[in-house]
Amino acid sequence: MSEYVHADARGASVGLVERREFVLEQGLEVACGLRLAPVSVAYETYGTLNRDGTNAILVLHALTGDSHAAGYYAGEDAKPGWWDIMIGPGKPLDTDRYFVICSNVLGGCMGSTGPASIDPQTGKPFGSDFPVLTIGDMVRVQRRLLDHLGVDRLLCAVGGSVGGMQVLEWSVRYPDRVFSAIPLATTTKHSAQAIAFNEVARQAIMADPQWNGGHYYEGARPGHGLAVARMIGHITYLSDESMRHKFDRRLQDRCDLSFNFEADFQVESYLRYQGNKFVERFDANSFLYLTKAADYFNLEKEWGNGSLVAAFARARARYLVTSFTSDWLYPTYQSKAMVQAMKKNGLDVSFCEIEAPWGHDAFLLPNERLDTLMGGFLERMERELEKERARKTTAAGANGHAL
Amino acid sequence: MSEYVHADARGASVGLVERREFVLEQGLEVACGLRLAPVSVAYETYGTLNRDGTNAILVLHALTGDSHAAGYYAGEDAKPGWWDIMIGPGKPLDTDRYFVICSNVLGGCMGSTGPASIDPQTGKPFGSDFPVLTIGDMVRVQRRLLDHLGVDRLLCAVGGSVGGMQVLEWSVRYPDRVFSAIPLATTTKHSAQAIAFNEVARQAIMADPQWNGGHYYEGARPGHGLAVARMIGHITYLSDESMRHKFDRRLQDRCDLSFNFEADFQVESYLRYQGNKFVERFDANSFLYLTKAADYFNLEKEWGNGSLVAAFARARARYLVTSFTSDWLYPTYQSKAMVQAMKKNGLDVSFCEIEAPWGHDAFLLPNERLDTLMGGFLERMERELEKERARKTTAAGANGHAL
Repeated sequence: MSEYVHADARGASVGLVERREFVLEQGLEVACGLRLAPVSVAYETYGTLNRDGTNAILVLHALTGDSHAAGYYAGEDAKPGWWDIMIGPGKPLDTDRYFVICSNVLGGCMGSTGPASIDPQTGKPFGSDFPVLTIGDMVRVQRRLLDHLGVDRLLCAVGGSVGGMQVLEWSVRYPDRVFSAIPLATTTKHSAQAIAFNEVARQAIMADPQWNGGHYYEGARPGHGLAVARMIGHITYLSDESMRHKFDRRLQDRCDLSFNFEADFQVESYLRYQGNKFVERFDANSFLYLTKAADYFNLEKEWGNGSLVAAFARARARYLVTSFTSDWLYPTYQSKAMVQAMKKNGLDVSFCEIEAPWGHDAFLLPNERLDTLMGGFLERMERELEKERARKTTAAGANGHAL
Repeated sequence: MSEYVHADARGASVGLVERREFVLEQGLEVACGLRLAPVSVAYETYGTLNRDGTNAILVLHALTGDSHAAGYYAGEDAKPGWWDIMIGPGKPLDTDRYFVICSNVLGGCMGSTGPASIDPQTGKPFGSDFPVLTIGDMVRVQRRLLDHLGVDRLLCAVGGSVGGMQVLEWSVRYPDRVFSAIPLATTTKHSAQAIAFNEVARQAIMADPQWNGGHYYEGARPGHGLAVARMIGHITYLSDESMRHKFDRRLQDRCDLSFNFEADFQVESYLRYQGNKFVERFDANSFLYLTKAADYFNLEKEWGNGSLVAAFARARARYLVTSFTSDWLYPTYQSKAMVQAMKKNGLDVSFCEIEAPWGHDAFLLPNERLDTLMGGFLERMERELEKERARKTTAAGANGHAL
């Protein structure tokens, strides 16, 4: 048993895991009309798919996440996957019961095909010749991965933020393949303010001379621009209240103001650290492409000809929609709008606004209320899926078609 | 009569104006301990100081404002001063009754001494050798200007945002020289979130290689960094609601998404335009110094040993405090905290939270409610000042000291 496998009140770890790769040799034609081939997808799975294939849960990561959602890699430092508090034996996404899948999005930089991948046409990294993608493109690739894994229908698709957009897209694009869906801290379309923050972050990257029009892989990378972009994003992930609790006006390593442009305040030092740390792990072009995909996402325009109610008319999933009181990036009114549109279609919807001071990031932090909600919802979904299958078997038997 | 002098429902224009200069040859020792000499101050005045010197109003501009608060410059395009809607005959700051003064802050780049000024020690622009300033330093220079203009006591000090910080500083630093004060849309200290936004904006400037450690005046200026800094600030001046009204997800000059990194949405195009326009008129180093001064501002620490109530114990002014519902940069709770501290000192305080969707910028926009509040408050202040003078004269007469 690995030294990493420990259990606590929140459940146990899935232990050592490995990143796998799925290659879609024929690739796909993405929304802008270009063909991208081959397409690689980095993914991980936790738990075991049952014989009936009814226990699969697809976890969709947020903007800068990756396929490493739970457990530990061998030989690396002991930082667990990004949603390890949620995935594992005895945790809400209980790997003793469910088969959990997480893949890196198309356009990302953590193993899946993205702007840093080699363009087969040139033998060099795509850079800004990579096609601009949509959330729909990401979801289409994920569907191919599920085909490959033998998962016909998901018990649940779950994710927060940009991951929540993918959840919504899944439930509308492939209604027959999603039994239930948990969009967390997300929206059906970015507000002007959310687009504005992303655009300024992109401008920070593109203003860095080392960005070099997107073709920088053979030279120095646009680290300064990417760090600023990350800092901007980071402020939107927190809240006025959480920043006051965490930093207030406390000074960093000094007893008085510096009267220079060093970091006087802890919050400044924190942001600089976050910016610099991000540069080590993330590709600037991926940041551009993924924020653009998030800005383009517009469920009502894409699927409802401008009407959100019409968009959800396609959906068949049972939903658990969750927002957080202090999330000002995707405020509760946006979740309420989607809940209303779902209800107008007679869909089975649970909605909860969770009281939490931590801003948008709340969905990633330990939260008992969220654990209970998600765990309870998934158990109900298991039972309902079982009932549905029993009904179908009985109906088929009554019609003389059983076996 | 100038062609620019036109009257409307909001009152008339002050017409053609000129920027003047006041030079403080001996300069001053600023808060960090360095001496800055000489110090130039660009200023404008509108209306006439009365014989008793009781009708002077000092207007304090916000972060990137200037001394040109009202009227028009000769021979330039017809854009009026930044608060022309508020200052003029028949307007709330009625120049038929009041003598209105506005000066560019120390550290600015619109005529007053700042980092782009020549350092007499080297004969070259200061750049980042300019001392880091405080709001208190700015106010001390303004006091010298008032001495020069023969104004012993202000009928009122008025300003919004960083201008409001100067109003507060005036009322506490020079209690005997401020009969009344109108701090608008402001705070007694920046929240961690406000510092965070300023810090990211500063990082955007300092990440621009053309910033060159602050010494760029002989070469290309850090325009890309400054534009990004301005865009960040601009988002914080608006609100989620106002951005939705103004832009929502409307596309710019196109009927569909571009699938490239041009500005797809109007809000993107607007921000790029605002960023680029700003670079033409503002100096990047001034942006660094002025945001730092705003971040350093902390009335309770400076004047109350950590207690806001103790800080206002020094004050003698009558206050009109105003906040705006959708201002999330300096939210109403911050105005309420200062009102509470003023009241605990038995000060005469009026407080109003104005319902307005326009975010922090609301104080600069036409607003009948604000006009009425400010106009009414100033009239009351005139009467009260008159009463106070009458009381003093009577008291002096009763004691046989009259004349």
